[in-house]
Amino acid sequence: MGSMARDSAATRARILAAAIEEFGAHGLAGARIDRIAEAAEANKRSIYVYYGSKDALFEAAMTHVVEDISASVPLDTDDLPAYMGRIFDYYLAHPSVVRMAMWLPLERPVSGPNETQAYAKKVAALSSSGGAIDGLPASDLVMFVNALAQSWFMSPDSLLAADGLEPRSEERARVHRAALVEAVRRIVAG
Amino acid sequence: MGSMARDSAATRARILAAAIEEFGAHGLAGARIDRIAEAAEANKRSIYVYYGSKDALFEAAMTHVVEDISASVPLDTDDLPAYMGRIFDYYLAHPSVVRMAMWLPLERPVSGPNETQAYAKKVAALSSSGGAIDGLPASDLVMFVNALAQSWFMSPDSLLAADGLEPRSEERARVHRAALVEAVRRIVAG
Repeated sequence: MGSMARDSAATRARILAAAIEEFGAHGLAGARIDRIAEAAEANKRSIYVYYGSKDALFEAAMTHVVEDISASVPLDTDDLPAYMGRIFDYYLAHPSVVRMAMWLPLERPVSGPNETQAYAKKVAALSSSGGAIDGLPASDLVMFVNALAQSWFMSPDSLLAADGLEPRSEERARVHRAALVEAVRRIVAG
Repeated sequence: MGSMARDSAATRARILAAAIEEFGAHGLAGARIDRIAEAAEANKRSIYVYYGSKDALFEAAMTHVVEDISASVPLDTDDLPAYMGRIFDYYLAHPSVVRMAMWLPLERPVSGPNETQAYAKKVAALSSSGGAIDGLPASDLVMFVNALAQSWFMSPDSLLAADGLEPRSEERARVHRAALVEAVRRIVAG
């Protein structure tokens, strides 16, 4: 790879990272290409050259996120509680990714081809794993794991603090993580 | 109540109903008082006279929603699975309410006094109910029930259809409702 190609790859990666932050913070409608350009230290024109439009940049950011989650936290049908815990860890480390997921049903409810495929693979893997999900449709189980993984991010501090813990503290996150793992253990234990 | 007071109460109720639709559809930032006025067959000035500002109208709409849910679907600490099913029924019948709840963490993450109080009451009721939630903090259980109740509305059609059912059909909703009730039964059974 020549130095121009290298520069271009680096610029695209910075644009994608800045886009995930911006879409997470402001959603699709509220995101501004100006701010993405500034955060990425790229010029606005290069964003349109590389990605075409704000919508297309959003799709590219979603594709990146879906691929990164699949690679970083592969579904483990033999141990869904541990998988639940790892998804929460990933989300805690990538709050903009969770926020992008939270904007989606409000702003872009029809899933893109990458998300559709990622869901289909999970549902197929769970369906063929048999016993683990006895009595619950695989698609509903995927919906539940997704929803539970977001529960920390959906909830106001007042609810997180309602049992007396500091709402966004490491201790609170540990307690919530343990509760998530235990809830999924109970769900799959039947 | 005289006829002017009656007219005023009716107008306020229409404004509140239209506000819930508008905030559900567009969120707080995207909502427009013009559209609320038109849908409520009220004039824009009357909305400012009654409610003061868009933010204040949003708070009034949230207060109304929180009170309506508490009254329509009271927490049943003796039968959380049945409660889960009823929350889903309420949400299915009031999609704008769910969408308001989904915008909240993105646009107005600090809960208002009515939501804070409603959460505190639920957590206190669950904590004192003891055995039902053995091993799970009450606040986490409330977070889980909230998240599970939204899972249908968060999920794209492609995921709802991944087990072969028509995504937003009555049959699909029945299957999801049964799965929700079963999941909560398992969570509280320990």
